Amino acid sequence: MTTSFLSQILKEIKPLDEGAMAEARTRQNMLTKPHGSLGRLEELSVKIAGITGKVMPRIEQKAIVTMAGDHGVVAEGVSAYPQEVTAQMVYNFLGGGAGINVLARHISARVVVVDMGVAANLKPHPSLVSKKIAFGTRNIAKEPAMSREQALQAIEGGIEVINEEVAKGLDIVGVGDMGIGNTTASSAICVAITGESVAKMAGRGTGIDDVQLASKVKVIKTALALNKPDAKDTIDVLSKVGGFEIGGIAGVILGAAAQRIPVVIDGFIVGAAALIATRLCPKVKDYLIAAHVSAEAGHRAMLEYLGLRPLLDLGMRLGEGTGAVLAISIVEAAVKTLAEMATFADAGVSEKLD
Amino acid sequence: MTTSFLSQILKEIKPLDEGAMAEARTRQNMLTKPHGSLGRLEELSVKIAGITGKVMPRIEQKAIVTMAGDHGVVAEGVSAYPQEVTAQMVYNFLGGGAGINVLARHISARVVVVDMGVAANLKPHPSLVSKKIAFGTRNIAKEPAMSREQALQAIEGGIEVINEEVAKGLDIVGVGDMGIGNTTASSAICVAITGESVAKMAGRGTGIDDVQLASKVKVIKTALALNKPDAKDTIDVLSKVGGFEIGGIAGVILGAAAQRIPVVIDGFIVGAAALIATRLCPKVKDYLIAAHVSAEAGHRAMLEYLGLRPLLDLGMRLGEGTGAVLAISIVEAAVKTLAEMATFADAGVSEKLD
Repeated sequence: MTTSFLSQILKEIKPLDEGAMAEARTRQNMLTKPHGSLGRLEELSVKIAGITGKVMPRIEQKAIVTMAGDHGVVAEGVSAYPQEVTAQMVYNFLGGGAGINVLARHISARVVVVDMGVAANLKPHPSLVSKKIAFGTRNIAKEPAMSREQALQAIEGGIEVINEEVAKGLDIVGVGDMGIGNTTASSAICVAITGESVAKMAGRGTGIDDVQLASKVKVIKTALALNKPDAKDTIDVLSKVGGFEIGGIAGVILGAAAQRIPVVIDGFIVGAAALIATRLCPKVKDYLIAAHVSAEAGHRAMLEYLGLRPLLDLGMRLGEGTGAVLAISIVEAAVKTLAEMATFADAGVSEKLD
Repeated sequence: MTTSFLSQILKEIKPLDEGAMAEARTRQNMLTKPHGSLGRLEELSVKIAGITGKVMPRIEQKAIVTMAGDHGVVAEGVSAYPQEVTAQMVYNFLGGGAGINVLARHISARVVVVDMGVAANLKPHPSLVSKKIAFGTRNIAKEPAMSREQALQAIEGGIEVINEEVAKGLDIVGVGDMGIGNTTASSAICVAITGESVAKMAGRGTGIDDVQLASKVKVIKTALALNKPDAKDTIDVLSKVGGFEIGGIAGVILGAAAQRIPVVIDGFIVGAAALIATRLCPKVKDYLIAAHVSAEAGHRAMLEYLGLRPLLDLGMRLGEGTGAVLAISIVEAAVKTLAEMATFADAGVSEKLD
């Protein structure tokens, strides 16, 4: 992807439809309930109206895009699990046995599994989308994660994936990740972009102990000092300390916003991708719904930086898109109230006393 | 219902099945995810195992029991809506146009609408269950809400309703309310039982202003001073300042616990009913799942008193069971992860490094 192609996509992202939002708000106030009594469900329904440009939007076709990639930095011992787990979990996704599969079935969403850069030759599978850029990133404690060209390629891969899903029919997308070592890359991205401290933005990922966490903090500091990502150049940040799946997720977010599809973001890694996407195009923020605040340290601060209030707080930290799935069901419920509830007039219910 | 019948039901409520919980916990730790990474979903799945006594419980048949009743205290101007709205909303429930109908359809739950004491002769309807005790309670600012016999009858009605639903097939129940004026009764119950201040426990209900709220606080104080509910005699509290639907909901909760059915409690009014149920039998608490913290002032304190942590915080304050429905979907998701996720061994995924 050339930089001019990226700027083209960014130009396609438009503000929300204020007219549709105003009409949706008016309708919410006509429905048989005290004004505002459905709380965030009402806000969500109005937001989806603004995103889609429809006063009574429907959410029927749902997809979770789960992007996988490996990280050279695992050589530094930053994760509680071995690198081969990334590939093993991709097979688990394809077999339908992972958390994301179970939860996606619960809400009747399809799961789109994407190899953005797993460090293994994955066996072809009808449900596996390959946008593989390399067999994992390089070790950011020693060198940049990827070239600038690869960073653009990762974003482009994500845009291609979402375009293919939109072509199949799509009303909402949730994004998730899989990649041993990717909280380390995400922390580094977050520190580079927000200027927050590494100590605040590094967490236990899949479950490292105090000693490993101290070492992880050191590795992130080393990676930032060595690679000097330029906060004013988002593609530089992604290439210096990012990940292929993180770039891919940023691409999905940008591509979805360009096509007016609501994007439900999952946890810490997707949050790092959202930071990249919103840095490239601040308007993207309006297309995002924060599913939940994860148990990963730093995620709450990341969401505050993004200006998003999470829907759920269930102590989850699995990734894969598992938080996003639960939130999609709530968004769907919200738009159903807007479309299906009776009005005071229709139901013959008395309105509020003066 | 005689008092001895009530004590019989209370005796049928048993502790959770610790064996099933231990096995469920063990299984959660074998599933392909870092231990604990599904957060409260894992806790919920273990709790449902304990309630049902099944290591891999399924939630398929779901019901929302929405109980309606009127309140004589509306004569004091405590609500933003006229009393006829209670009956009008019952017809709206039966017509499928209310918030609870839309949300229940979203999770494929049936809605059971019960007339516990609406102040109108409701037209018969195949979906309307009648356990009507009277045409609304008396005005608690002037006299007791109901007789002791009626309070017992309300609880008995609730037990009958849940028994009928269990007979049809039921894996989980959500409870909700409808009744203009019922936040006033609920506040009074809560103050009588917990000893909290009226100021803390009285809220805006369907949307009263500051002047009306000050007046509502005065009305509750008057009702408590006049009727002197005895905190040590829960039936006395219900009869002096309660409501027919509140007693009915307490009955549903007790009856469900006796039959090992998980009960998802909704907002402020159901919370007052849960206070009554747990006062009659403290073990009932283990069968309760708090769906959400509502926007009604005092609800958070009420949940703390019940010792329950809400699953959702979406600024909702509609009642009807609308919060309970959303939470049931999350509970269902939780038990699905326990039953359907692959184990590390089955999926050939490497476990955590030592």
